[in-house]
Amino acid sequence: MSPLKNDLLLRALLREPVERTPVWMMRQAGRYLPEYRALRAEAGDFLTLCSTPDLACEITVQPIRRFPLDAAILFSDILTVPHAMGLGLYFAEGEGPRFRHPVRSAADVVKLGVPDVEDDLGYVTEAVRRVRRELDGRVPLIGFAGSPWTVATYCVEGGGSKNHARIKGMLYGDPGTLHRLLELLARATVDYLNAQVAAGAQAVMVFDTWGGLLSPAAYREFSLQYMSRIVEGLDREAEGRRVPVILFTKGAGARLTEMADAGCDALGVDWTTDLAEARRLTADRVALQGNLDPSVLYAPPARIAEEVGRVLSSYGRGPGHVFNLGHGIHPDIDPEHVAAMLAAVHARSPAFHA
Amino acid sequence: MSPLKNDLLLRALLREPVERTPVWMMRQAGRYLPEYRALRAEAGDFLTLCSTPDLACEITVQPIRRFPLDAAILFSDILTVPHAMGLGLYFAEGEGPRFRHPVRSAADVVKLGVPDVEDDLGYVTEAVRRVRRELDGRVPLIGFAGSPWTVATYCVEGGGSKNHARIKGMLYGDPGTLHRLLELLARATVDYLNAQVAAGAQAVMVFDTWGGLLSPAAYREFSLQYMSRIVEGLDREAEGRRVPVILFTKGAGARLTEMADAGCDALGVDWTTDLAEARRLTADRVALQGNLDPSVLYAPPARIAEEVGRVLSSYGRGPGHVFNLGHGIHPDIDPEHVAAMLAAVHARSPAFHA
Repeated sequence: MSPLKNDLLLRALLREPVERTPVWMMRQAGRYLPEYRALRAEAGDFLTLCSTPDLACEITVQPIRRFPLDAAILFSDILTVPHAMGLGLYFAEGEGPRFRHPVRSAADVVKLGVPDVEDDLGYVTEAVRRVRRELDGRVPLIGFAGSPWTVATYCVEGGGSKNHARIKGMLYGDPGTLHRLLELLARATVDYLNAQVAAGAQAVMVFDTWGGLLSPAAYREFSLQYMSRIVEGLDREAEGRRVPVILFTKGAGARLTEMADAGCDALGVDWTTDLAEARRLTADRVALQGNLDPSVLYAPPARIAEEVGRVLSSYGRGPGHVFNLGHGIHPDIDPEHVAAMLAAVHARSPAFHA
Repeated sequence: MSPLKNDLLLRALLREPVERTPVWMMRQAGRYLPEYRALRAEAGDFLTLCSTPDLACEITVQPIRRFPLDAAILFSDILTVPHAMGLGLYFAEGEGPRFRHPVRSAADVVKLGVPDVEDDLGYVTEAVRRVRRELDGRVPLIGFAGSPWTVATYCVEGGGSKNHARIKGMLYGDPGTLHRLLELLARATVDYLNAQVAAGAQAVMVFDTWGGLLSPAAYREFSLQYMSRIVEGLDREAEGRRVPVILFTKGAGARLTEMADAGCDALGVDWTTDLAEARRLTADRVALQGNLDPSVLYAPPARIAEEVGRVLSSYGRGPGHVFNLGHGIHPDIDPEHVAAMLAAVHARSPAFHA
């Protein structure tokens, strides 16, 4: 494969010195881009896009063509793993993801097995290979998976949920069954991420969107424990280089210290925690990724630049910061506002690395 | 009015010694109770229940008849204030609250004024008077309002919202207009809560459901600032007794220290923060109210008792704890499970006050 021309992201994730702060955006490949909407209108539904390597590759690379980003992230979905386990993922129009066969009981869990990545998720690894060819070393590619807890919420609820009553009922009423499901998901996720790395992913990120719903004790037992197991099971080197691992739990500002003990290289931080506080809590043991409020991108460009400056100052001087939004970009953001954000990071961040 | 027979709540909120930990539940008057559902089926929609003093009084007292609770909380809604300002509140079936005339621009804000409580919100103060008569001193009555920020989210979005794009757009793009709206809501809320106190509310609580959506700096500027102004404007004594004020921002574990500086007597704590940590952050300057995960009530009674013990231990010994859920009770909870929770608080809490 082509040598990597821009390795700012990989260096920053390992807390090595950089000339400026690297930047990418969660959900950077997606609906706010007209070229994505055009392709989707032509090619069909979300699941078709995820499961067709050529389309997933094209969508992954779209934002890299348009913007001076420092990383690509694979276009995929956190629910590919339970889909491969046979739960029957589909997307109801305007309703988000649903499962035909949700997991509601111990008997449902017993029926499940760890999928064979090559057989059942080969479309993802094939997309990774194509993206690497297409990127041709311009920027590194990030692979990803959902955290076992977050994926389990969808498996048990049968889709998105307001109160998460079913999985919370299982957590407090039948924790053994939930642990068996989480254990299975963790093993499947290790295989899945290692296959992404073998296919060419140069960093991996675990998204724990719903870990913030848990009490501190429940978070430790039902979410962090399984993310730690994933970190332990991952291949951490490929192509002669360390493959950094990023963990991200939304709404987990108060948990950053224990997350940093999980053995990962970096933590994602949402916009509700100051990076200065996050850095204090993690004592420079890990890199930090974040954390502009995605809604700042609704503001005029001058205001965006100001808020970018605030995030950079909040992290402060020295290595170990990857600029990002604090959560995925909203689908109704003007791409010009993204350009303004990136320009501000390029212009203002070198001062923090001088 | 009748002398108060059970003042455990008022003493605990002021950090005075108590024999056992007082307990009440957010949303204790509501849908999980069959007697509420029966009354609602007969009497009509949610807004009719709120705006008819006899019905609001009856619903407020229902849980007090059924359970050994230590407080009643007025049955009402946080959107009565903007409704009185002319925004036209209605409840679309299955969709939650909506406004006919949302606030979208500086011109929309200019048209608004502070409502006259007696004229426009007299149905609330009348309900307070009836509840006090009906309670006959059994337990104290808590009055409440929404925080200006939280109420503003509904005013600007026109109802509930997933991304809160409009108000976030206003916050970053036109903060002056948002400040004018918040200022107006804060003034209206002071009048409203003081009228509730004058009518008989013996403690008041400000609910900031959406403050946790904000970055730390934005929280300070757009939410906490206005809650502090409310606290400053409140009448803090009635019937020869201090009227405690409780502030509650959901998802604000990391903000508890600065919240404690707002001049309130107590802070609500959601279930994602350990009470031990909350107590450390607030250094016993305020009482703490919370924080059982409302989903624990899905579990079998024995498990509920165990989790109640965990919450009590987390707060530890001494005064200043009011037991509550970490958020409102879910509408599909079995009332028997509520009874189990209350029994556990009664049985287990005296040891922490010996």
